Amino acid sequence: MADQSAAYARLLARFARIATIREAAAMLGWDASVMMPPGGAASRGDQLAVLAGLAHGLLVEPVVADNLAGAESVAMAEGWDAANLRLMRHAHTRAVALPGDLVEAQARANAACEMCWREARRAADFALVAPRLSEVMKLQRAAAEALGPALGLAPYDALMDGFQRGIGAAEVAPVFADYEAFLREALPRAEAIQASRPPPRPLSGPFPAAVQEALCRELAGRAGLDFSAARLDRSLHPFSGGTPCDVRITTRYDEADLAQALMGVLHETGHALYEIGLPTAHARQPVGEAAGMAAHESQSLIIEMQACRSDQFLGWLAPRLHARFGGAPEPYAPENIARLWRRVARGHIRVDADEMTYPAHVILRFRLEQALIDDALPVGDLPGAWAEGMRALLGITPPDDARGCLQDIHWYDGGVGYFPSYTLGAMAAAQLMAAARRAVSGLDAALAEGDLAPLLGWLRTHVHAEGSRLGFNALLRAATGKPLDPADFQAHLTARYLIAPELAA
Amino acid sequence: MADQSAAYARLLARFARIATIREAAAMLGWDASVMMPPGGAASRGDQLAVLAGLAHGLLVEPVVADNLAGAESVAMAEGWDAANLRLMRHAHTRAVALPGDLVEAQARANAACEMCWREARRAADFALVAPRLSEVMKLQRAAAEALGPALGLAPYDALMDGFQRGIGAAEVAPVFADYEAFLREALPRAEAIQASRPPPRPLSGPFPAAVQEALCRELAGRAGLDFSAARLDRSLHPFSGGTPCDVRITTRYDEADLAQALMGVLHETGHALYEIGLPTAHARQPVGEAAGMAAHESQSLIIEMQACRSDQFLGWLAPRLHARFGGAPEPYAPENIARLWRRVARGHIRVDADEMTYPAHVILRFRLEQALIDDALPVGDLPGAWAEGMRALLGITPPDDARGCLQDIHWYDGGVGYFPSYTLGAMAAAQLMAAARRAVSGLDAALAEGDLAPLLGWLRTHVHAEGSRLGFNALLRAATGKPLDPADFQAHLTARYLIAPELAA
Repeated sequence: MADQSAAYARLLARFARIATIREAAAMLGWDASVMMPPGGAASRGDQLAVLAGLAHGLLVEPVVADNLAGAESVAMAEGWDAANLRLMRHAHTRAVALPGDLVEAQARANAACEMCWREARRAADFALVAPRLSEVMKLQRAAAEALGPALGLAPYDALMDGFQRGIGAAEVAPVFADYEAFLREALPRAEAIQASRPPPRPLSGPFPAAVQEALCRELAGRAGLDFSAARLDRSLHPFSGGTPCDVRITTRYDEADLAQALMGVLHETGHALYEIGLPTAHARQPVGEAAGMAAHESQSLIIEMQACRSDQFLGWLAPRLHARFGGAPEPYAPENIARLWRRVARGHIRVDADEMTYPAHVILRFRLEQALIDDALPVGDLPGAWAEGMRALLGITPPDDARGCLQDIHWYDGGVGYFPSYTLGAMAAAQLMAAARRAVSGLDAALAEGDLAPLLGWLRTHVHAEGSRLGFNALLRAATGKPLDPADFQAHLTARYLIAPELAA
Repeated sequence: MADQSAAYARLLARFARIATIREAAAMLGWDASVMMPPGGAASRGDQLAVLAGLAHGLLVEPVVADNLAGAESVAMAEGWDAANLRLMRHAHTRAVALPGDLVEAQARANAACEMCWREARRAADFALVAPRLSEVMKLQRAAAEALGPALGLAPYDALMDGFQRGIGAAEVAPVFADYEAFLREALPRAEAIQASRPPPRPLSGPFPAAVQEALCRELAGRAGLDFSAARLDRSLHPFSGGTPCDVRITTRYDEADLAQALMGVLHETGHALYEIGLPTAHARQPVGEAAGMAAHESQSLIIEMQACRSDQFLGWLAPRLHARFGGAPEPYAPENIARLWRRVARGHIRVDADEMTYPAHVILRFRLEQALIDDALPVGDLPGAWAEGMRALLGITPPDDARGCLQDIHWYDGGVGYFPSYTLGAMAAAQLMAAARRAVSGLDAALAEGDLAPLLGWLRTHVHAEGSRLGFNALLRAATGKPLDPADFQAHLTARYLIAPELAA
C-alpha cells in the first residue's frame, strides 16, 4: 500500500507538472491569436513545440510505466483517485502508442497543409491543397492504426477518442441516421412555418463595437463570468482559452450585425464557465479536466442556444437591446428578435448554420472523414462527395470549394474525429436543459428575468464539478437519468421551430 | 574533432531549447504584468516556476558537463563558437554551483519578502519588512559564497556577475568615487546656472493618454522600432520584454505630464532595438544574447538621454509637440523644453532623478548592498545608513523610509548586484555616443531632423551585432577604442549642464 501510494503520489506530481506546462502553452496560444505581432510567429511556433515536447517527454519517460504499474498493483476504492489513475493510464497509452517520428511528421505535415489550405480557400480551389491533405490523411491513418490496437479501438474511433473519450462511430452513426430522418420531415415544416409569417424586420445598425463590447461584458458577467479571473478580447476566430483561474474568451465585432458577437460571447462564456467550475481539488489532474469536447460543447450550447436564445431570455434581453442601441422599437420586439436570431436556413457554411441544420453539416463531415481514414474515399474525390452529401442532407449544392470542403480548418490542421463533438454537444445540451428544468423550479422564470444563476448552479453541481470522473454517457446518466438520448434535442427543436408559440398565440 | 563537434552540436541544441523555454517564460511574464487578471496570479507563478525548473534542469543534467568537457578538449579557433562555448561553461558553472534547495529557498524568501515590502512601502515602515529582508540577504550571502569560489570571484562580485559578467566591485568602486568627486563640484555649479535663468514654463496639459500613445508609437517607430515585430502596451511599471522578433515594451501615461511616457517609451525602445539587433545567426545561444545589463542600459540611455534629450532632437521635437497638443507656443520653445526635461534636482527617488544626480543614487545602493552582503551592515541599520549616505552624496535626508530604503523593489526581490549596471550603462552610453559622433558624420544633423537612423546604424554594427561575444569592456574597446572611461560621461554632463548653450548664446 505504501508503494502504491508512493507511486501514485509520484504520478500526481508528474501529471500536475505536465498540466502546468500545458497551461503555459495555452496562454501562449491565446497570445498568438490575440496579441502577438506577426513577427513573433516563427519563434512562437518553436516555443509551443518545445513545450509540447517537454510535456510529451514527461508523459513517456520509462518511470511513468513503472509508477502506473505500481499504483495499479494495489486495489483502490472506486472514486476520484481510481478514475484519475485510469485516465493517467489512458493518457500514457495514447502517448506511448505514437512513435516520436510520426508525431513530428504530423506536426510538419499539418503545419504545411494548413498554410496551403489558407491559400486554397482564398482561391476556392481544392486541387491546390489536395496533395498536402493526402499526406495529412496518410499520417492520420498511421496514427489511428498505431493508437487503435493500444486502446482496443477501431482506427477512426481511436481518433475520436482523442477528443471525446469513450464515444465511437458505432454509437454515433445511428444517432446521426435518426437525426437525418428527423430533419427530412422537420426542416420543410419549419421552413413552411417561417414562410407563412411576415419576414422578421432587421435591426438597423450600426452597432458600435465599443458598445457591443460593453454589452457582451455585461451579459457574460450576468451569465456568471467573473472578470477578476477572466478576460474578453478580440480575435479573428472567436475561442475560449486560458486556464480555469484565468480564462480568456474572444470574439469579433461586426458593426452591422449585433447577434454575432453577442451570441458568440455567450457561447464562449459557456465554455469558460465549465473550465471555471471544474473541481479545484483535482486541478491539473486528468480527472479534474473537462469531460471531453462533446461535454464542452454542451456547456457552450446550453448557455447560448438553450438559455440565451430561449423565449424567456430574449423577452428579457430585447427591450434592453433597444435601450442600448435606440432606433425604431418594432424590430426590438421579442418575437421579432426571436425570428431573426432563430431563423432556419439551408446554407453552405457550418459556422453560420442554425441549430436545426447544423447537425447536417456535422453528419456530412463525420461520414466523409470516416471514409477518408478507412481509405474508402480518395482525397481527390472529396469535393464531389461533399457536393453529393450536401444535396442528400440539405438539398443544396456548394457553388465552389471555398463554400464546400475547404470551409473548415479541421482536417487541414490534422483534426480528424472532432466534428461529431459539435452535434453530440448540442444533443447533450438539450438533454441537460430538460433535466435542469425538471430539477430546478423557477429556472425559466429566472431566465425571463435575465438570470442564469439557477441554471448555472445546477450545471456546476451536475456537470462542472464532476470533472472527467465519469465518461460522457455516465455523466449524462448521473445528471439526467439516462445516457445520450437524441429525443430531447428533437423535442427542443420541435418546441422551438415546429410548434411556434407566435403561431399558437 | 568529430567528437568535439558532436559534443558542441549537442550543446547548441540544448542551449537553444533552454533559451526557447525562457522565451516562453518571458512572454508569460509580460502577460502577467500587462494582461493577466488578478485571479491568474497563483497559477502563473506555478507556470513560471515549472518553466524555470525545466530550463535549470536542462542546464545541470550530468550530460552537459560531459559535453562541455568534450567540446573543450579540442582546440577551437577564436571566434563566435569559442566565445559561445566559454559562455556555456560560465552558465553551467553558475547553475551547478547553486544547490537546488538554496535556489528553492531563495524563490520562496524573495516572493514572501517582495509581498511584505509592498505593504511596508505603503506604510513607509522599514521595520515591517526587515526580518524578511534579513532572510533574503542571508540567502543572497549563501548564494554568493557558493558562486564565488566556482567562478573565482569574491562573493559580491559573484552576484554582480549575474547581471554584468566580468565587472567587479574593484573596478566599479574607483569609477564611482571619481564620479562622486566630480558631482561634488558639478552639481552646485549646475544648480547655480539653473538658478540664474528664468524658471522653465510648464507645458500645460492635459495630454490625453490616447494622443500620447499615438505620439509614443510614432516616435518609437521613428527611432527604428518595427511594430510588425513589437507591441507597445500599458503597465504600472514600464519595461521592455518579449523576444527579439516579438518585443513588448510598456509605459504608463500621466495626462498631466508629457515627458514621463514619451521619454520612457524612447528609453524602452532603446532596450528593444538592442534585442532586435542581436545577431540572428546566434539566436538562442549565449553568445547571441545581449552583453549584460550595463550594456543593455547603455542602449536605452543612448536613445533616451544622449539622442532624444539632445538639443538637436528636442529642437526637432518641440514644434511637433506643440502642433500635437496646441496651447500657447512659448512653453514649446526648444530651449524651454530642454530646461524642463533636463532639470537637475537633488531628489529622494532614483527613478525620478536627472542624469547628473542619478549616479549618486546608484553609488549609495552599491555601497550599501556590498556592506549587506559582507555582513558589515546589519539589515536593521539600513535606514540610518541610507539617510547618512544621502546626506553625504546629495546633502538631503529622506523624510521617511518609503522615500528612502524602501523605494526600490530590487533587494526585496533578491536583486543584489544589479544597481551598478544603471550607472555603468549611463557612462557607456556617453562613451558610445562620443564614438558614434566621431565615426558618423552628420549624426547630429540627422538628430536635428528627428532622424535616429545614422546613430542606430552605428549601434547595430558596433554594439547590437556583437551579441555577447565580447565582454563589457572589450565591447567598448572594439566600439570606442578604449575600455569604460567615465571621462566621456563627465564631458557629456559638462557640455549639457555646465556650459549651457542657452547661456553661451
